Amino acid sequence: MANTKAYAAQSETSGVAPFGIDRREPRPDDVSIEIDYCGVCHTDIHFAENDWGMTQYPVVPGHEIVGRVTAVGSDVTGFQVGDVVGVGCMVDSCRQCSACEAGLEQYCLEGNTPTYNGEDRHDHSVTYGGYSEQVVVSERFVVKVPEKLDPAAAAPLLCAGITTYSPLRHYGVKAGDRVGVIGMGGLGHMGVKFAKALGAEVTIFTRSDSKVAEAKKQGADHVIISTDEEQMAAAAETFDVMLDTVPVQHDLNPYLNSLKFDGKHIIVGLLEPVDPALEAAALVMKRRVLAGSLIGGMPETQEVLDFCAEHDITCDIEMLDIQNINAAYERMKKGDVKYRFVIDMQTLKAA
Amino acid sequence: MANTKAYAAQSETSGVAPFGIDRREPRPDDVSIEIDYCGVCHTDIHFAENDWGMTQYPVVPGHEIVGRVTAVGSDVTGFQVGDVVGVGCMVDSCRQCSACEAGLEQYCLEGNTPTYNGEDRHDHSVTYGGYSEQVVVSERFVVKVPEKLDPAAAAPLLCAGITTYSPLRHYGVKAGDRVGVIGMGGLGHMGVKFAKALGAEVTIFTRSDSKVAEAKKQGADHVIISTDEEQMAAAAETFDVMLDTVPVQHDLNPYLNSLKFDGKHIIVGLLEPVDPALEAAALVMKRRVLAGSLIGGMPETQEVLDFCAEHDITCDIEMLDIQNINAAYERMKKGDVKYRFVIDMQTLKAA
Repeated sequence: MANTKAYAAQSETSGVAPFGIDRREPRPDDVSIEIDYCGVCHTDIHFAENDWGMTQYPVVPGHEIVGRVTAVGSDVTGFQVGDVVGVGCMVDSCRQCSACEAGLEQYCLEGNTPTYNGEDRHDHSVTYGGYSEQVVVSERFVVKVPEKLDPAAAAPLLCAGITTYSPLRHYGVKAGDRVGVIGMGGLGHMGVKFAKALGAEVTIFTRSDSKVAEAKKQGADHVIISTDEEQMAAAAETFDVMLDTVPVQHDLNPYLNSLKFDGKHIIVGLLEPVDPALEAAALVMKRRVLAGSLIGGMPETQEVLDFCAEHDITCDIEMLDIQNINAAYERMKKGDVKYRFVIDMQTLKAA
Repeated sequence: MANTKAYAAQSETSGVAPFGIDRREPRPDDVSIEIDYCGVCHTDIHFAENDWGMTQYPVVPGHEIVGRVTAVGSDVTGFQVGDVVGVGCMVDSCRQCSACEAGLEQYCLEGNTPTYNGEDRHDHSVTYGGYSEQVVVSERFVVKVPEKLDPAAAAPLLCAGITTYSPLRHYGVKAGDRVGVIGMGGLGHMGVKFAKALGAEVTIFTRSDSKVAEAKKQGADHVIISTDEEQMAAAAETFDVMLDTVPVQHDLNPYLNSLKFDGKHIIVGLLEPVDPALEAAALVMKRRVLAGSLIGGMPETQEVLDFCAEHDITCDIEMLDIQNINAAYERMKKGDVKYRFVIDMQTLKAA
């Protein structure tokens, strides 16, 4: 076995290190992909270090994958050898439920199959992610990367991109809307680009003065220091949509109060209990909405790539040799990356 | 002054007792109304007893008003003497903001003028509610009560009715949807009637076995005992809309988990902080929505009355002499009313 070089974590404390895995021969509907680039998502760290208590070791992280097609199964119609393609957070789903039929495979009623730390629906093997030379994925879960996009900078679109694009589209953000983006990391900076491209007037909320110049550089029309009570009070009832990318507990109430009546606060980063407690009155008195959103379905994942090509949007990235992945994790924990590490997978081949 | 008999609370502990108030001569856009019936809302108790710390004594409660037009101002075009009309929770708003222009006066950007304990926008007097012989209200905030409706049983439609009807309409409840109604008081039992009339399959969630028969009598297709973990687990991911009428703190998480992906949980009763803490993951993982809703705008308040006439819907009421109002409050605090007290205002005249 072990036909493919990869990097895996072996335990909560092992860090990520070289490991051999076996990739299957393509099934009839499979696409075999030689991986060129893989973005590094904070979720990778959570799984490598078992923060959520659900890691099956060894785990090969990576769900922002861009590469080239090297082989296709006999039933594949949408891809051919040489195509530049992407794979995101899912590699399979039941394909028959109401969610799958609506192209919302992320909400598959049976549960989607994650790109790593999931269970293959056919042979029940554990799925391994993009920190590897190759990946074999069913055609339905592969998207085309438009030629116009830099393939390295396109990789994070498969998670950070679709995660922020999907809710902005679902809630119909349009020209003239006032959109707030909370947090300016990998997700937040993509949210700004998308909201601007959709014609919105965009405000970044950040806790620190030091990020104001950077926020403006990212295209934000305004910056509000969220720790400044005067600035927050002045923002009351002025936003249509708030895109909340913060992955740790924070007070939602000042942001809810910044929404107009019928305004929407969309959580894409937080998976913890809401603490401090949410004020129900802030929802009731102004018919506001608190919502969540999880990545996006496969049709919309293709759409975001096409949208980015059309609007000249890519992620701001810092290229990384895979040998430096553990150091990159440490920098990410400190928020020290603008805005996404992308692994140059040539460095794995060379290893 | 004091041209009108009324009942008012004079302090947090006074109870509600006879009190004389002065009603204005109609302004050009005003309708003068002789009050026949006034529903008793739990909000009346909160204001009489200053539970929210915002009562201006003396307070004359009552915002579920039905009566007959006795005079109209010179500019009034929609009403004439003798019309049976209703007045709900608001008697004025700015009429110029985006909310007012959309017929959503309850969300007026300047704040609407509540029917009682509000401040008149013209003479800055305190507004007095429906526990009185007469009320004078600007035409825009008066609705017609269809002849087909029993005027006494129509009174609670002006608050309990519109509060539950509006969110079901706003979120597009339709035939075949699975709707849960949490709580079976004045609001909840109306929610069941509306959801049924819209064609939904309706489940009442109640904490107590003792309410099952009554829930079925109200037209619910199913009853779930919310304290029964097995029943709640079996309900996971099966509802499109949850209408939450509970006015005290309760755990929202089991209900959120009962929603399908894209399901909506709508709070109409709770104005407190959400405790236990809301699980953000329940929103994110299934794109669920937690929303609030406040009464309804004036066009929709007319609509709910017309809808009730068309579908033979009224509130289940217990008629009350105004002399017994304090005893009624005590019974309401114990949940001992099916489902709304309505004051027969003839008993005030007789006093």
